[in-house]
Amino acid sequence: MRKVYFAGSIRGGRQDAALYGEMITFLEKRGCRVLTEHVGLESLQAEGERSMTEEEIFDRDMSWLRESDLVVAECTTPSHGVGYEVARARDMGKVVHIFYDLERSSLSAMLAGDRTFILHPYTSREELFEALDRIAFPRERDALI
Amino acid sequence: MRKVYFAGSIRGGRQDAALYGEMITFLEKRGCRVLTEHVGLESLQAEGERSMTEEEIFDRDMSWLRESDLVVAECTTPSHGVGYEVARARDMGKVVHIFYDLERSSLSAMLAGDRTFILHPYTSREELFEALDRIAFPRERDALI
Repeated sequence: MRKVYFAGSIRGGRQDAALYGEMITFLEKRGCRVLTEHVGLESLQAEGERSMTEEEIFDRDMSWLRESDLVVAECTTPSHGVGYEVARARDMGKVVHIFYDLERSSLSAMLAGDRTFILHPYTSREELFEALDRIAFPRERDALI
Repeated sequence: MRKVYFAGSIRGGRQDAALYGEMITFLEKRGCRVLTEHVGLESLQAEGERSMTEEEIFDRDMSWLRESDLVVAECTTPSHGVGYEVARARDMGKVVHIFYDLERSSLSAMLAGDRTFILHPYTSREELFEALDRIAFPRERDALI
């Protein structure tokens, strides 16, 4: 079972929380295990997880990141945490998929210009989930790289 | 002359551009060379530098990051680019200083929980510039670490 680290904004703003939840459910239905499932919970507010210390959250997330087979990041809402996670992931040699709504966002040049990232700009839900489907069910090894 | 990589939001939003400019001028007056001086220009809008390709911006910024002696990041406005830059910087072994306005922001747990970062929460301009002064004029080696 492929392990996915899903990255989405928490303290940067929760306006896309429902979308994160749909993407996570979609990946799980296709047999992936999403380690960061809580990112899609609408009950998780912008203040984040206050029952843990910052260091505990950090250590858990870095451990999940190391354990993951690939990273799926939804990058429409600006977020320091997501930027941090995709950078650490690439330095760990992980495959990183970056999704962003072309109409609602202007992707950072650091993400758009990093040739190790696989970019998935989308203009409709259909386009987003078609791309996610190709990631969940790679037809050939090349689809992962 | 100490070379500083200053990181601030561009496409994430330019509401703090004037503050970035003041911090950069402050560091330069104290003898630092700020490689990313353009981040503080109010003429630089959220669409970013459109005369260069994404890859050209990325390559220039990564080259400055490698060349820098330390990183100063203003993290009040959420930004994928800034999160990316501080993560890459820590993986390069750089000293990273994170500034954020305690009242206007909720710092990401990825930044707050990473023990390699030096955090500078502030509640007033005086507090911010006092901390910046200690970075620009370190009194002892420990102040840098």
